[in-house]
Amino acid sequence: MSFRDDGAAALEWAARYLEHVGDYPVLAQVEPGDVRSRLPASPPEEGEPFADVLRDLDGVLLPGITHWQSPRFFAYFSVSASEPGILAELLAATLNSVAFLWRTSPASTELESLTLDWTAQLLGLPTGWHGHIEDTASTSTIAALAAARETTGRNVVVCSEQAHSSVDKAAKLLGLEVRKTAADEEFRLRMDDLDLTDAAAVVATVGTTSTASVDPVPAIAAACAEAGVWLHVDAAYAGSAWVCPELRWSQAGVEAADSLVVNAHKWLFTPMDCSLLWSRRPEELRRAFSLVPEYLRTSDEVDSLSEYGPALGRRFRSLKLWAVLRCYGRAGLQARIREAVRLAQLFEGWVRDESGWEVCAPRHFSLVCFRREGADAENEEILERVNRSGELFLSHTRLDGRYVLRLAIGNERTTEEDVRRAWAALKGA
Amino acid sequence: MSFRDDGAAALEWAARYLEHVGDYPVLAQVEPGDVRSRLPASPPEEGEPFADVLRDLDGVLLPGITHWQSPRFFAYFSVSASEPGILAELLAATLNSVAFLWRTSPASTELESLTLDWTAQLLGLPTGWHGHIEDTASTSTIAALAAARETTGRNVVVCSEQAHSSVDKAAKLLGLEVRKTAADEEFRLRMDDLDLTDAAAVVATVGTTSTASVDPVPAIAAACAEAGVWLHVDAAYAGSAWVCPELRWSQAGVEAADSLVVNAHKWLFTPMDCSLLWSRRPEELRRAFSLVPEYLRTSDEVDSLSEYGPALGRRFRSLKLWAVLRCYGRAGLQARIREAVRLAQLFEGWVRDESGWEVCAPRHFSLVCFRREGADAENEEILERVNRSGELFLSHTRLDGRYVLRLAIGNERTTEEDVRRAWAALKGA
Repeated sequence: MSFRDDGAAALEWAARYLEHVGDYPVLAQVEPGDVRSRLPASPPEEGEPFADVLRDLDGVLLPGITHWQSPRFFAYFSVSASEPGILAELLAATLNSVAFLWRTSPASTELESLTLDWTAQLLGLPTGWHGHIEDTASTSTIAALAAARETTGRNVVVCSEQAHSSVDKAAKLLGLEVRKTAADEEFRLRMDDLDLTDAAAVVATVGTTSTASVDPVPAIAAACAEAGVWLHVDAAYAGSAWVCPELRWSQAGVEAADSLVVNAHKWLFTPMDCSLLWSRRPEELRRAFSLVPEYLRTSDEVDSLSEYGPALGRRFRSLKLWAVLRCYGRAGLQARIREAVRLAQLFEGWVRDESGWEVCAPRHFSLVCFRREGADAENEEILERVNRSGELFLSHTRLDGRYVLRLAIGNERTTEEDVRRAWAALKGA
Repeated sequence: MSFRDDGAAALEWAARYLEHVGDYPVLAQVEPGDVRSRLPASPPEEGEPFADVLRDLDGVLLPGITHWQSPRFFAYFSVSASEPGILAELLAATLNSVAFLWRTSPASTELESLTLDWTAQLLGLPTGWHGHIEDTASTSTIAALAAARETTGRNVVVCSEQAHSSVDKAAKLLGLEVRKTAADEEFRLRMDDLDLTDAAAVVATVGTTSTASVDPVPAIAAACAEAGVWLHVDAAYAGSAWVCPELRWSQAGVEAADSLVVNAHKWLFTPMDCSLLWSRRPEELRRAFSLVPEYLRTSDEVDSLSEYGPALGRRFRSLKLWAVLRCYGRAGLQARIREAVRLAQLFEGWVRDESGWEVCAPRHFSLVCFRREGADAENEEILERVNRSGELFLSHTRLDGRYVLRLAIGNERTTEEDVRRAWAALKGA
């Protein structure tokens, strides 16, 4: 193979894909097994040209791809792999650094610390926090709760009933019990239901998955401080909004957190995977995870970031974050975040003004929860209909027992016209 | 930015890097803090051109990079990010799939299952095992031990004193106790020291980190079956060797394992990260990890691979493995593995034939453990000297209390001349 020629073909594929991604059905229109059945059951004996891989990527895989890069992907939390981030992944794969020790990739280790500091500045976080990258918020939460367990010696995790399922998953892995606190009418943790008995940690959420509600972090932080309980803040989605000062009201209390997760791969234009975990008590993370066997011992007097989380091998994830922060700058990030919020606000207004439709939760950021007034079944049908059309992709949740649609804006390619098309499709126009 | 122009520049950077990677000092010749001190302490306000990122990658980061892609990287386990694998990472970042449910990326989910089946065929594993990809062997081992804990309800993990530190790390995370069994004179788990009282799992290793020794898996498997203990086989490095039938002697007993990890990013020419986890009891992994909240509920009657491990979000890692398997084929993989083994054999012979040097452990695959006869200090000095020279990069271990050098071959660019240069440098010629 010729790396230059095959690379040029791959790059051209990527460029065309990004140009045309809005033309594809957003949700893959295939049945389970369709993709697999069109590929050979066994690997080739002799090597094939890379061009064949590209050919099958087009012919076989593409119909089975749900287009997260589409401007009309509105499900879950909409994300973007920005162009500088994509190209940085090419470079990271080329370098193939495995940064389990400082010496095995000084540049990766130091750039990771630096980009986390840069991002902390952009988000207005307290200075001096220790930051590193995990793959996903699930893993960041595992790391934070492991540190909480190590520090407190207790075994209960407290969170609201609106907290993400990764809290339950992490707790199960760590052998912790989860105590769920009720949420109020705006889907925020209810302080009067908060019971910290035997609590190792509270997970407070800024931007919950169902509605992007914001827990009362200042009050939670005060209670945690009083009871000696670790406070982990899950701002996986909404934390990126703090690039904009006008959205920093949702950061109140976070300065008192013991750990904080923000996913750069959610709303900071960085390709999967890039979950940012900060802590003001990094020594507790190290106590939970550091183990240095003989074959990893060196004379370097410097920490390795693998001592702060579950995995040993670590790829050069900071390169893509660095590329995004540099190529977009604070101003570019703010403009994109503000546009997503503006579009969500616009959509919210259309729903509010349309009879027969309702907004089901306060809209704080770029997520709108809404439904057709009427039966759950009708809303489920709407969801199925628009998703099957390929015109847009939405997901749902359940609030106060009712089936609710969610429209999440976050892809940097999404325009007002895309949101307008989504609304028209929803109304069945 | 122009994606095509910036992409062409990034690709050209990557092509030149791969052409010249053998010319750089293998181990980064910087002091802690050097890289960071040469970068701005704060992110830019306005976006910068991508060309500036490439400029600083050359000028600031490159001196701080330890070149895992160098043909004279002989430390830890030597790896390769092959060209098809690198280009596939560009494509995966472009698609930015987040495959937490089948429907969020059918192609990713199905290609992951298929490539794991393909790899199982290439390695000669039993048919019908369930495979999926985790980031690293650390995470694969966490998943396997969580399933073992769930299945058995017991809380002891047994492994040899030569097992990888990720077993201790996983056990600590899971709240399990680790019982270490002594190793014999060839660094294999000693059956007469195996105590399965209260054991949830045994981790047997095929290709230990220090010496690539092979635990007596058939005997361990029989004991596990008798005692109802989960057998997890860690073949993170050596499992790839099974592509070659003449190396499958080391697979004996693995057919009886409950789970098996092989890292494609170690010796299967796939960029970091790509750890392959198979299990013949996938329902136990699901029991340990599956949690489906309302906002992830769909009508699709199909499993999601996020139900088999700790993370929810999953990137499209199978694309790079698929590209490697297709572009190399069985024959290409075998040729590369065989060449690495041949070079290690050659080096082993040189050490054996040289007076004043000794081979310190049986060589089974592409790792040679050796030392200068004499004091530990002399060997430490040799290691420091050659690593500082930039000519090659070696790591060490400790065997029977003695400081031992390790030369690991695995980079596909390594030639006989590279190994010859390494030997000359070690001898101080």
